[in-house]
Amino acid sequence: MLLLSRAVAPGLRQACRLKSTPARLCIRACCTDDSFQPQRSSFTFSGGNSSPRRWRVAGTLLGLGAVLACHDRQCRASQESPRRYTREEVKSHSSLETGVWVTLGCEVFDITEFVDIHPGGASKLMLAAGGPLEPFWALYAVHNQPHVREILAEYKIGELSPDDKAPSVLKTSDPYADDPTRHSALKVNTQRPFNAEPPPELLTENYITPNPIFFTRNHLPVPNVDPDTYRLNVAGPPGGQSLCLSLDDLYQFPKHEVTVTLQCAGNRRSEMTQFKEVRGLEWSLGAISTARWAGARLCDVLAQAGHQLCETEAHVCFEGLDSDPTGTPYGASIPLARAMDPEAEVLLAYEMNGQPLPRDHGFPVRVVVPGVVGARHVKWLGRVSVEPEESFSHWQRRDYKGFSPSVDWDTVDFDSAPSIQELPVQSAITQPKEGETIEAGEVTVRGYAWSGGGRAVVRVDVSLDGGLTWQVAELEGEEQRARKAWAWRLWHLQAPLPAGKKELNIVCKAVDDSYNVQPDTVAPIWNLRGVLNNAWHRVHVHVAP
Amino acid sequence: MLLLSRAVAPGLRQACRLKSTPARLCIRACCTDDSFQPQRSSFTFSGGNSSPRRWRVAGTLLGLGAVLACHDRQCRASQESPRRYTREEVKSHSSLETGVWVTLGCEVFDITEFVDIHPGGASKLMLAAGGPLEPFWALYAVHNQPHVREILAEYKIGELSPDDKAPSVLKTSDPYADDPTRHSALKVNTQRPFNAEPPPELLTENYITPNPIFFTRNHLPVPNVDPDTYRLNVAGPPGGQSLCLSLDDLYQFPKHEVTVTLQCAGNRRSEMTQFKEVRGLEWSLGAISTARWAGARLCDVLAQAGHQLCETEAHVCFEGLDSDPTGTPYGASIPLARAMDPEAEVLLAYEMNGQPLPRDHGFPVRVVVPGVVGARHVKWLGRVSVEPEESFSHWQRRDYKGFSPSVDWDTVDFDSAPSIQELPVQSAITQPKEGETIEAGEVTVRGYAWSGGGRAVVRVDVSLDGGLTWQVAELEGEEQRARKAWAWRLWHLQAPLPAGKKELNIVCKAVDDSYNVQPDTVAPIWNLRGVLNNAWHRVHVHVAP
Repeated sequence: MLLLSRAVAPGLRQACRLKSTPARLCIRACCTDDSFQPQRSSFTFSGGNSSPRRWRVAGTLLGLGAVLACHDRQCRASQESPRRYTREEVKSHSSLETGVWVTLGCEVFDITEFVDIHPGGASKLMLAAGGPLEPFWALYAVHNQPHVREILAEYKIGELSPDDKAPSVLKTSDPYADDPTRHSALKVNTQRPFNAEPPPELLTENYITPNPIFFTRNHLPVPNVDPDTYRLNVAGPPGGQSLCLSLDDLYQFPKHEVTVTLQCAGNRRSEMTQFKEVRGLEWSLGAISTARWAGARLCDVLAQAGHQLCETEAHVCFEGLDSDPTGTPYGASIPLARAMDPEAEVLLAYEMNGQPLPRDHGFPVRVVVPGVVGARHVKWLGRVSVEPEESFSHWQRRDYKGFSPSVDWDTVDFDSAPSIQELPVQSAITQPKEGETIEAGEVTVRGYAWSGGGRAVVRVDVSLDGGLTWQVAELEGEEQRARKAWAWRLWHLQAPLPAGKKELNIVCKAVDDSYNVQPDTVAPIWNLRGVLNNAWHRVHVHVAP
Repeated sequence: MLLLSRAVAPGLRQACRLKSTPARLCIRACCTDDSFQPQRSSFTFSGGNSSPRRWRVAGTLLGLGAVLACHDRQCRASQESPRRYTREEVKSHSSLETGVWVTLGCEVFDITEFVDIHPGGASKLMLAAGGPLEPFWALYAVHNQPHVREILAEYKIGELSPDDKAPSVLKTSDPYADDPTRHSALKVNTQRPFNAEPPPELLTENYITPNPIFFTRNHLPVPNVDPDTYRLNVAGPPGGQSLCLSLDDLYQFPKHEVTVTLQCAGNRRSEMTQFKEVRGLEWSLGAISTARWAGARLCDVLAQAGHQLCETEAHVCFEGLDSDPTGTPYGASIPLARAMDPEAEVLLAYEMNGQPLPRDHGFPVRVVVPGVVGARHVKWLGRVSVEPEESFSHWQRRDYKGFSPSVDWDTVDFDSAPSIQELPVQSAITQPKEGETIEAGEVTVRGYAWSGGGRAVVRVDVSLDGGLTWQVAELEGEEQRARKAWAWRLWHLQAPLPAGKKELNIVCKAVDDSYNVQPDTVAPIWNLRGVLNNAWHRVHVHVAP
């Protein structure tokens, strides 16, 4: 611990010398239902690319204990009987203008003066502003140490009123009433069904996305599945027997693990909307996340059911246990050739980052199809069958397809386009953020890059002048497996700022190992559903004088 | 024949009413060595996508016989002793300004007045201007009919001087002296080594490219291989035996046929050069062609030699029998995983469109790697081995790689980029041509589209206004096989011209089944070797008043 304090002390002393100016960006935490259940604090970050060194650095930066050495303010935690606040009052203190309040358990803290010296950065701390710290401390276990609590204690201003229960906004008649609680850092696009993405500053913080902030794309209410009575129906071939598998049955298949990035076809849709209106959720750049998945290989389960690869075209159809008011389940399909190919590593997954699947991500079993659009990774999997045609589901036939910019809702013929399976090469900038003001001197640009179909990312180019000149970013982590690059590469570029520039147009574009590249602009790939936006990602920032 | 005449008569009458204005574009035929050996006139157009109807239409349009009905000029084939011309004189008559002369056998014809009424179009006829007709009549067998010769006879002006032998420009001390003769329609980029492409108007005339005009990319002189003594050396695994296969041995393996498009990495390099100089051959849009290949599957031959797929990374290295003055052969490699995958259909090909490989295309055996850049399809194959690393050949390690636009010859690190294997999605316009003047009313745009890795072309968008608005082109031929779309799709769009437009900026862009798209512009994908240009293809044309 002493070592940790020594390591960060010089940086912190410098931080304390800076004037406590208001943070330039205040991220409003999303407080939907704060009755957060603390998770196991030690996540299994077992992805091949996660670097132990990086975790140590993160730990060092986030170690609030070190701050002990430099702050000198009075302890507000009085000995008298504590002042009482409602959750509503806390919530109203979520900016530097109103003051920044947070809670831990029933205690309330005013951490306004601490924001700018938070070793992890002001913007990350502001994600918790106006709400409980627990969801964030669960993500960053380094906070769960006595000396961190000691620092925090000095900012205590009172306690939550014992009469003020956590809000319960959902009525039991609501089909979504039984949805699980979510992490307050998630940026919610729709509450019912729940669709949310992690904010950019957390998205690429880790190679493996922690489960609580993994982007969530639900089409229907979340089913509440009893793992003891859960059965997966796998239809047999014509004349054959169907399988009815319990979870224990599924555990008997060889356990296969693979790190896979999932991306929604609508990721970065909000940029398409800026050009011209589309129908769809307003995803920013966070409808993409990476996890280590474990489960049975679909090819093993299909083989057990008596299926084999055939010469004629065939598809594996999936049905979820989530269904609409008419009882129609969510459904999708993938080609049999992919399902039966052991090298394609398609899973019936029951673990996500070493834990049982969270309810929002398909508990107890979901499909994971590496290299393929999120919509085919059917959650709460109820049924698997092999059919001569694609799934007849709305989401296979009447959605998740790409069209020419000339096609509108009057002229669209959904049968004329193939269902999206593999996705094109993609990249985006997560730091700095759009509209941010950055310090002069040097800029660090960070982001992610990924391509579908197992194609590896081989290069990311970054421009600081809107695409006139380019620099090659450094790809982080290990080289990807050939033909099996199922997960993203994080990248960064540290570059001197062009002298005298008051603003920058930062752009990134990635190249995959088929040398596919991203298109320059959004308009020519615009489509009525706003899917498949992989145009160059652009961020406009100001440079501090 | 009567039926044929009736079918084309109205169109021809209309053509005859037009004034005989000079053709707007005169394509200069490339006459390097005219001692052309007529090929078998019936090609095997066995590609799945070739349409019998289309061939009938082509036959109709090219049927010169029908012209009998409308021309009324004097017969110049005099009964007197014929006037004599040298080949040089004929060659100097290759434009409408100088007069258009051609030869057939030893006879010389002045067809200037026939150019504008050629049913196949003036620009195609002009490819033969100043030289022999045989190479073109070999491609378009419809000409080999008595009535066509009758028409031609009427334009006869004399005969070739019997003392004037076909030129033999190459000295025997020249390492290229033994190169084969080539088709005069080919647009030659370099003669030594021979690199040439078909002109746009012939490129997409057929789904299957006829052998004589298939683009040729040679790195070295063409070896002259004796098929009787030819042996292919296939190195065995460590401790195993090598195979030494004669052609007859190779014929014993199951014969596998597949239609594959080959594309040079430098296709469309000339557009990159327009932005900024690069090192490389000035390919236009014709460094791409399609053939029906037949041969032994590489996986079968490797299995026979005792090789099997291994968990560790491995590569199949190929050596050609062509070599530089130091004796270093052309070489390249592909990953073992692709070579051993029967679904990847990698061939040791000995047939091209139903004929033995032409010398320029690797006689007697070449590698064909569907979905992969041309550079790996090693010709005149001499040796195959399985190695832990990629081929050490210059062309694998120090060429055929992609780089950021920021990389120049002072900073390039060839080890930092992967060798090109699969190519990105590509498309180009072959009609109309750059700078052409088109008739008002309606325009027909034609071209090709292809993607690497077996990804199918699912859509081609065409713009007549430089990319502001788009129309969907019609894809010709049959649906492509999933994951095995090894060959291009030809496409066309027939569209009314915007009223009052004096010029058009026509653009095309394709989408493959991973929904990869082409980038908007060349500059951001520019690279020092000028490879991988798949930016939107743009053609600027004028509209006749």
